[in-house]
Amino acid sequence: MILREKPGIVALLFAVRGSVLPRILPRILAVSALAAVVVWLDGNILALPHTNAAPFAVFGVALSLFLGFRNNAAYERWWEGRCLWGQLLADLRALGRDAELFLPQREDRQQLLRLALGFIHLHRINLRKSSDFTQANAWAGEDFSQTPHPPCAVMNRMTTLAATSVPDGFARKALSERLSSITLAQAGCERIAATPLPYVYSLLVFRTTYLYCLLIPFALLESTGWMTPVFVAIVAYVFFGLAEVTEELSHPFGETVNGLPLDAVCRTAEISLCDHLEQTPPAPMTPQNYILT
Amino acid sequence: MILREKPGIVALLFAVRGSVLPRILPRILAVSALAAVVVWLDGNILALPHTNAAPFAVFGVALSLFLGFRNNAAYERWWEGRCLWGQLLADLRALGRDAELFLPQREDRQQLLRLALGFIHLHRINLRKSSDFTQANAWAGEDFSQTPHPPCAVMNRMTTLAATSVPDGFARKALSERLSSITLAQAGCERIAATPLPYVYSLLVFRTTYLYCLLIPFALLESTGWMTPVFVAIVAYVFFGLAEVTEELSHPFGETVNGLPLDAVCRTAEISLCDHLEQTPPAPMTPQNYILT
Amino acid sequence: MILREKPGIVALLFAVRGSVLPRILPRILAVSALAAVVVWLDGNILALPHTNAAPFAVFGVALSLFLGFRNNAAYERWWEGRCLWGQLLADLRALGRDAELFLPQREDRQQLLRLALGFIHLHRINLRKSSDFTQANAWAGEDFSQTPHPPCAVMNRMTTLAATSVPDGFARKALSERLSSITLAQAGCERIAATPLPYVYSLLVFRTTYLYCLLIPFALLESTGWMTPVFVAIVAYVFFGLAEVTEELSHPFGETVNGLPLDAVCRTAEISLCDHLEQTPPAPMTPQNYILT
Amino acid sequence: MILREKPGIVALLFAVRGSVLPRILPRILAVSALAAVVVWLDGNILALPHTNAAPFAVFGVALSLFLGFRNNAAYERWWEGRCLWGQLLADLRALGRDAELFLPQREDRQQLLRLALGFIHLHRINLRKSSDFTQANAWAGEDFSQTPHPPCAVMNRMTTLAATSVPDGFARKALSERLSSITLAQAGCERIAATPLPYVYSLLVFRTTYLYCLLIPFALLESTGWMTPVFVAIVAYVFFGLAEVTEELSHPFGETVNGLPLDAVCRTAEISLCDHLEQTPPAPMTPQNYILT
Amino acid sequence: MILREKPGIVALLFAVRGSVLPRILPRILAVSALAAVVVWLDGNILALPHTNAAPFAVFGVALSLFLGFRNNAAYERWWEGRCLWGQLLADLRALGRDAELFLPQREDRQQLLRLALGFIHLHRINLRKSSDFTQANAWAGEDFSQTPHPPCAVMNRMTTLAATSVPDGFARKALSERLSSITLAQAGCERIAATPLPYVYSLLVFRTTYLYCLLIPFALLESTGWMTPVFVAIVAYVFFGLAEVTEELSHPFGETVNGLPLDAVCRTAEISLCDHLEQTPPAPMTPQNYILT
Repeated sequence: MILREKPGIVALLFAVRGSVLPRILPRILAVSALAAVVVWLDGNILALPHTNAAPFAVFGVALSLFLGFRNNAAYERWWEGRCLWGQLLADLRALGRDAELFLPQREDRQQLLRLALGFIHLHRINLRKSSDFTQANAWAGEDFSQTPHPPCAVMNRMTTLAATSVPDGFARKALSERLSSITLAQAGCERIAATPLPYVYSLLVFRTTYLYCLLIPFALLESTGWMTPVFVAIVAYVFFGLAEVTEELSHPFGETVNGLPLDAVCRTAEISLCDHLEQTPPAPMTPQNYILT
Repeated sequence: MILREKPGIVALLFAVRGSVLPRILPRILAVSALAAVVVWLDGNILALPHTNAAPFAVFGVALSLFLGFRNNAAYERWWEGRCLWGQLLADLRALGRDAELFLPQREDRQQLLRLALGFIHLHRINLRKSSDFTQANAWAGEDFSQTPHPPCAVMNRMTTLAATSVPDGFARKALSERLSSITLAQAGCERIAATPLPYVYSLLVFRTTYLYCLLIPFALLESTGWMTPVFVAIVAYVFFGLAEVTEELSHPFGETVNGLPLDAVCRTAEISLCDHLEQTPPAPMTPQNYILT
Repeated sequence: MILREKPGIVALLFAVRGSVLPRILPRILAVSALAAVVVWLDGNILALPHTNAAPFAVFGVALSLFLGFRNNAAYERWWEGRCLWGQLLADLRALGRDAELFLPQREDRQQLLRLALGFIHLHRINLRKSSDFTQANAWAGEDFSQTPHPPCAVMNRMTTLAATSVPDGFARKALSERLSSITLAQAGCERIAATPLPYVYSLLVFRTTYLYCLLIPFALLESTGWMTPVFVAIVAYVFFGLAEVTEELSHPFGETVNGLPLDAVCRTAEISLCDHLEQTPPAPMTPQNYILT
Repeated sequence: MILREKPGIVALLFAVRGSVLPRILPRILAVSALAAVVVWLDGNILALPHTNAAPFAVFGVALSLFLGFRNNAAYERWWEGRCLWGQLLADLRALGRDAELFLPQREDRQQLLRLALGFIHLHRINLRKSSDFTQANAWAGEDFSQTPHPPCAVMNRMTTLAATSVPDGFARKALSERLSSITLAQAGCERIAATPLPYVYSLLVFRTTYLYCLLIPFALLESTGWMTPVFVAIVAYVFFGLAEVTEELSHPFGETVNGLPLDAVCRTAEISLCDHLEQTPPAPMTPQNYILT
Repeated sequence: MILREKPGIVALLFAVRGSVLPRILPRILAVSALAAVVVWLDGNILALPHTNAAPFAVFGVALSLFLGFRNNAAYERWWEGRCLWGQLLADLRALGRDAELFLPQREDRQQLLRLALGFIHLHRINLRKSSDFTQANAWAGEDFSQTPHPPCAVMNRMTTLAATSVPDGFARKALSERLSSITLAQAGCERIAATPLPYVYSLLVFRTTYLYCLLIPFALLESTGWMTPVFVAIVAYVFFGLAEVTEELSHPFGETVNGLPLDAVCRTAEISLCDHLEQTPPAPMTPQNYILT
């Protein structure tokens, strides 16, 4: 995630990191070049049909509608992912407090919380399909990387611990509720990670955007003349840019510049539980080159 | 559900699976042919009235509004269906942990979880109106296919099991809450399956789309000439395409390419509970030819 | 509620049931006739002012915005009504299971569930302001039709039953939570039934729609000539049609063709509880002439 | 709140109550008069610049976007206010049933419910900043009007009553949950009442609307001639009308014609609890001159 | 937060506080000056290309879509922030009542509530990154400013207090639920504060707005002539104004004029708990110069 002030004039002109421009530049140049060819053909070789703006108005409205929908859906996925991680953080803190209230043995409390920190790292690893289990194993005190579903395996371990060390009905009830709240947030994240936006929208949006950018020169020829490629470039920037942004935001757990800073949330969880674990808290993560991972 | 990367240039040009193009092609060709007839009549037989774009601008905005609304509603149904299945998965996992915490007998625990896996399969069968009860019967250990409402019947069996084997108030309370959470998600799915989008919207949307596509040649004649059928085809592609997508997404439990992968979620549930059942977990399902069922 | 496949070509041309066309036809004809008069006056008697499309573009956008908002709000009321009934169904099923888990006497269990089925019918009667208490009385075993608020009266009876027959704290707590969940869904339905969309929107929408349809001939005269009434008719169909749909959907509990199928949901509730009542379940309701009531 | 059928032709033409027309008429007349002056100046004194519609199209879209956003936000505040009162009603009914289930003394039960009815009236008084404490005092049996926060004071009294009269852990837990649910709905209402829509939107919307209405004559001059003031009046009606509606709906607890009928909800609460209080229920409130307060 | 009546005619013309005008004036003047230069060049030096409005129509629709999305997202963050603080207030009040119901010792009760008031101040300080811990320390009776995460530290202290002074399972369960509800609202606020809107939107919106304002003179030249700079200024006011508003609202906890009045909510919490603390409540905060901090 990029942490940066509102863009000033310099950032507006030159910011590249976080910008989608580099990725869509080839496409912008391609459609602009085609527009230039159309202008040149029309002026030098043969008169092409000049359509007016009417069909494009509705076409543009429909395209805006598609992109607007897709943008909303992608942003909601991104934000729901962030909310679920916020909830996981709250649940871990609450678990720390529940441990104090309900688990009589200091040993069991600390074991439970270490497993919980192992869980949050394994959950992150699972969502990002990464393969570095060092931190997770260090906290969990055991290697869960070979289990069929590591985050679930560590949660099962926590349950066994609770079942054996908690003699009290209230405590069992409280821990059951806490664990199932964590389970729900976990399943929510896995749902977002496993279910992309329907593919049919991608086809529809990209096909329509290309058609629009390839046909619009015919509508602009008459009025904008040699500035046609400039206008085509701008329209392409707006539409391809938005399409690209939504593609990235719709995968909130990816390791992209706009992905969620899961490492930083895991670190915050460690800081929050250190008090209960009687350890010195690590330092919070800070953005490197404006980026928090 | 289609699992596929962002469409590249080849997919954009040729992808058919997941595309709505094959289904709407006849309609696109029909309205384009009509447009071609109009152009030919106008040029060769008698001058038809050339209306300007003004009435179509508003008409198009209204049509976009209809389609946009319907698209949002359909996508929300699809996503709510997915969320409910995510919740069911979380509830099954939590049930597995509650069983460890609250059910003293290993026998009862495993029986409860086998019934729960039977339930999830029966629920899937019920939503999809399919008739293959093999997996469901294997897990439930009994044939529920002849009961008036199989998923409810197996839930009632689970309740009876809990009532007889749980002597503890805390445990009964915890299981009651877990079962009612499953019941709520189940009723949510049945609500989506039983209540389509109001039919009146379909009529309004399809009638308006046809009217628009049939009348727009008169507005384009003047400016686009012989390219009129091309523009009509594009407009038809955009509007019929979106109408078709929304039709499919609004039935999220159907066995269409954009339907939800219920088989895969059931498999994930089996994997999640195998640890408690002390069985070897089955392999997760993988997409066949980009499609996960 | 209409249960029907996606409209085919025949339904598109001739479907009347579920269509709003019959109700808005007089208005469409009226504004079209006025448009015809304007065309005739302009051509034969005196030249009327020909305004261009500019003011209508913004006017049309604003009108679309009004109708779009109203349509969203109406659909949300309709869907929230459906969700609340889905929740009631889930609560009744959960109540049946809670009865098994917490009520020791078979007698009390069945009495509670019969009252619950009486409740769901009384709630339906209350929302629809109907007067046929036969089914409700049959289930409740008593006539609640003369009480100030029948659904509340039967809920109070259920409470008394629970208070007298349940010696256990856990059971009282569980039933209290179940009953309050039912109460919340019930109050949600009554809120929708008692609070229509603000009247001021109706005035604004209908006044604006009429103004638009009466003035637009002046903008079309120039370009569409004798086809003006046709275009006015189409614009009127789109706008009056949407206004009418929203009017109907915003009263989800009415006995209209687009109203919610409350009878069918009540029947499903009966089927769901018959197992606990040790009765033969009735057959599910099926659509009559595509309509489920 | 206005309770009235869908407006018929007479209401459409003449309805004043509930209409925003009277309040915005001066503004409509003012901008129309200015438009008339512009037309007269242009025709008789000196030729003014005739701009085309292009800049107004985007301007109008932006204005629609502002008003649409504000309208949605205002309606959501109104509807959330209504939902919270619906929840309060459900909570009072559930409190009545919880009292039956958990409070052993008939005396305590009735005292608790009388305080609860006092609370709902004090809450209404607090939101509306009214000063008639008669009904509230009659139910609560005490004058809370001089306390720093009357609804909170009566809730504290209910808590004290529960703490002293309830020996049972289950009962204390159930009442604690019920009271905190009421507290949450209460705080939700106070949040809406204390936090208006950001003022900056009002400035932006009203300034933009005025600018639009003052400048649009220059775009209409050319095409609409002497009908310009009529079009300006209609555009002003649409935009000022919507701005006014949103202003009113965004204060859902105000005593305006579109405000929520809090008196009626309080009365419904009284009717709902009378059974538990063994009193004759009062008659439900009916609309006076179409208006329910 | 600005608390002010609907703007009258004077406020509309002159209100500066709360207006974004001062901040965006330089940008408006800059693009207007450029437009003036374009007009002068076109008339006196060399004829520049006059494009028509067609490309700008779609461009403007897309820009409105971007700004509309961003505005909705920013407002939702602002309102969610307000909702979470409303929930915190409700939770503190409920905690006061839970203390009465569940904590037997008057001493413990008051200590818990003083820590809770310390928490709410520390939470405010944490969100606003301010450094004045006077009030927080006064309530908490201890200096938490040097702990790694002060609001969490004071919550942990509350937990320890509850664990040592509450012998009862019901009480521990009730306090655990209350504390975890506070934790959840707290984590929600921290989520909003730590996760800005994706930076890529800022780039896209500001770059597109500038491009639009710099290019639109070429489309206006033909029709508006010397009024071009005026129109450019208005368009710039609308778009930059909205961009600026969304920037401010998307940081709801900032100490800006549109930021949330956290000081006032903290004061309301103090007033609400004073009754339980047997102290004289402080006076509620009132707006200074229309502004509540």
